[in-house]
Amino acid sequence: MNTHTYVEIITIGDEILYGQITDTNSQWMGTELNKIGFKVIRKTSIGDTREEILNILDEAQKRADVILITGGLGPTKDDITKKTIADYFGVDMTFHQEVYDNIAELFRNRNRELTELNRLQAEVPSNGKVLMNEVGTAPGMWFDSGNKTFVSMPGVPREMKFLMTNHVLPQLQKKYETPHIVHKMLRTMGIPESVLAQTIEDWENNLPEFIKLAYLPRFGQVRLRLTAVGEDKTELDYAINEQVELLKPLLGDKLFAEEDVEIEKVIMDKMITKGLKLATAESCTGGLLAHRITKMAGCSAFYNGGIVSYSNDVKHSQLGVLKETLESYGAVSEQTALQMAENVKEKYNSDFGIATTGIAGPDGGTEEKPVGTVWIAISTPTETKAKLLQLTKQREVNITATTNNVLQWLNDHL
Amino acid sequence: MNTHTYVEIITIGDEILYGQITDTNSQWMGTELNKIGFKVIRKTSIGDTREEILNILDEAQKRADVILITGGLGPTKDDITKKTIADYFGVDMTFHQEVYDNIAELFRNRNRELTELNRLQAEVPSNGKVLMNEVGTAPGMWFDSGNKTFVSMPGVPREMKFLMTNHVLPQLQKKYETPHIVHKMLRTMGIPESVLAQTIEDWENNLPEFIKLAYLPRFGQVRLRLTAVGEDKTELDYAINEQVELLKPLLGDKLFAEEDVEIEKVIMDKMITKGLKLATAESCTGGLLAHRITKMAGCSAFYNGGIVSYSNDVKHSQLGVLKETLESYGAVSEQTALQMAENVKEKYNSDFGIATTGIAGPDGGTEEKPVGTVWIAISTPTETKAKLLQLTKQREVNITATTNNVLQWLNDHL
Repeated sequence: MNTHTYVEIITIGDEILYGQITDTNSQWMGTELNKIGFKVIRKTSIGDTREEILNILDEAQKRADVILITGGLGPTKDDITKKTIADYFGVDMTFHQEVYDNIAELFRNRNRELTELNRLQAEVPSNGKVLMNEVGTAPGMWFDSGNKTFVSMPGVPREMKFLMTNHVLPQLQKKYETPHIVHKMLRTMGIPESVLAQTIEDWENNLPEFIKLAYLPRFGQVRLRLTAVGEDKTELDYAINEQVELLKPLLGDKLFAEEDVEIEKVIMDKMITKGLKLATAESCTGGLLAHRITKMAGCSAFYNGGIVSYSNDVKHSQLGVLKETLESYGAVSEQTALQMAENVKEKYNSDFGIATTGIAGPDGGTEEKPVGTVWIAISTPTETKAKLLQLTKQREVNITATTNNVLQWLNDHL
Repeated sequence: MNTHTYVEIITIGDEILYGQITDTNSQWMGTELNKIGFKVIRKTSIGDTREEILNILDEAQKRADVILITGGLGPTKDDITKKTIADYFGVDMTFHQEVYDNIAELFRNRNRELTELNRLQAEVPSNGKVLMNEVGTAPGMWFDSGNKTFVSMPGVPREMKFLMTNHVLPQLQKKYETPHIVHKMLRTMGIPESVLAQTIEDWENNLPEFIKLAYLPRFGQVRLRLTAVGEDKTELDYAINEQVELLKPLLGDKLFAEEDVEIEKVIMDKMITKGLKLATAESCTGGLLAHRITKMAGCSAFYNGGIVSYSNDVKHSQLGVLKETLESYGAVSEQTALQMAENVKEKYNSDFGIATTGIAGPDGGTEEKPVGTVWIAISTPTETKAKLLQLTKQREVNITATTNNVLQWLNDHL
């Protein structure tokens, strides 16, 4: 068995076309489907218009076995998905008591009153199987049409994820047989894509047919993704690992992780294993460093906390940067960065302190220190040092790139 | 003139289908196109396969006037877009000296050596007009095909944005006439979508034909978007403002902004106008609050900085929360939150202090204080008070929702 089950993802909503929200649903769905061997062949976003919905349903079922639809199921008037699906199948709408009871209970728990619109939410096309939505009011709907499957889900990410995890993915696995797909992600930093490609060219040319390589560049890092497709999972694992072992010596210290984890996760694992504690002092990154760390469950085992020192006053009074330093060298200077890293380490009773100070932009640059001038510093148990970065003119890029750089530099010291 | 110019956006890359990157390009493009009156009718993501690319180009030109393609132009082997576009038009590839010189100069500036792959990057389909990419190596390409236009751009967001801003959008405006589109966004909080819909039902039913309303719910906020399409911009502006004035009394204090700005932007404007300063003390939000504030250019005019106190030790030593408080009531308590907000205000010499402390999860909950138990506090020039939130089991939702709640509460006090 080596045939693919093809999936198409359709997101409905004018707000996506107008760019007023980012579609994160289809990324999450792609990841989860891929893990269990379904092949996403296309993702389409269309507007809330009857004709567009009818067209895409018809097109999609020609290409794919499974059509997953999100969006357009809210209680308000701009959502016409459900009625259009009923028309597509040529069926009526039926009132579904269990769905209505679920809505009523959700509203009771939140002390809200039901409206007439909520009653309409309990209507579903008569050929659909209801997928109960325990975390919201709009139900999911499953339609079998020959060996094709259509599923409609609300666009609220939390509700879509609940329905996918508890209903859709398990039922798809029952209905379709799928090949094995094995991915391996290697994360590199400090080497541009074209140089990397040349470095590993011979290795790449000798990859077996059933293993594909992709380069995924992002913020100065390149992720390498190996994908093997076949029948026997053990064989695929073996073949991929064999290739990875050949590749690793070519990558050297540019390789920082052999899985798709962020650098902060690598740091967390190392620091917890070694019993080390971290503190952060942020000026230009303004809390993003702390946020990236504290997004991870379990971070309190190694992260003591930090200071966001956005004014010179705070750099002096809270971080103990000397007044003379701020006056002579300025807030964006090697000397300030060094004191920030060392002092936050001491004050927060930690083994490592890291610090950022720079001109994120768009304003605040000078001829001597243009926008994008950033100092990062690290204080280890044995030394404190600083490094100058020359970044871009764009505030958000500078904030993110500084955060990546200081995390990578910390990782080098662990 | 009232005909629409239809645009289709195509993003190419297996990594998008596999869910390994989020497509943020098409959102940005949708926003920019919409501003100048082009109507995006569809967004499609497909894989890096020749057949898929040929199919979608052919389908898209049947529906749209302008086809904008991003992705698949990198220097490495998984990218086949350029060659396939040449085949689609039935033309050869030509070496383009100016593109090569640009690549060579970029590499000189970064002290890197050119590889053979970079030479291939300077080849373009012979019927394409090159759009010079000053911020990267892959050129943009513009193809006129009757009154249809195809544009191919690299997938790196910074490069795509450079090409769109400097070449594509201005040239599209020259080539096509477009109707006027006027949007107005109203942001509400604290009222669920279905209740909101009922509240404004009569008003909505009386909207003129050429004005459309959409509900955009997100994290406990609902944005209302009014869209008017027509020939005369002055008339559209007038008509939309008239409707907004009718709507506002119905929304009352649930309306927090009359434009699509985040709550932190509303706060920044108010605090700078009033000459007020802010400090933050974060436990469970772990820096996100500071990051949301410092993402905004100009924030140093009102934000002094903050403390991320992830350990009890830091809450006591850096924030001055009393040991007895931490022992008797715990770190997640009204008493701790009150001291955090008040002390950070004093220490950071600010007018307002806001604080968060809670159990973000997934672990760390108890029967008395389950995951999702969060205290937020605010210290104004005249009083300090705290509020209990009962949130969800999901760490990321709790971090974001706490941040939104404390910002909204602060805004209520300004």
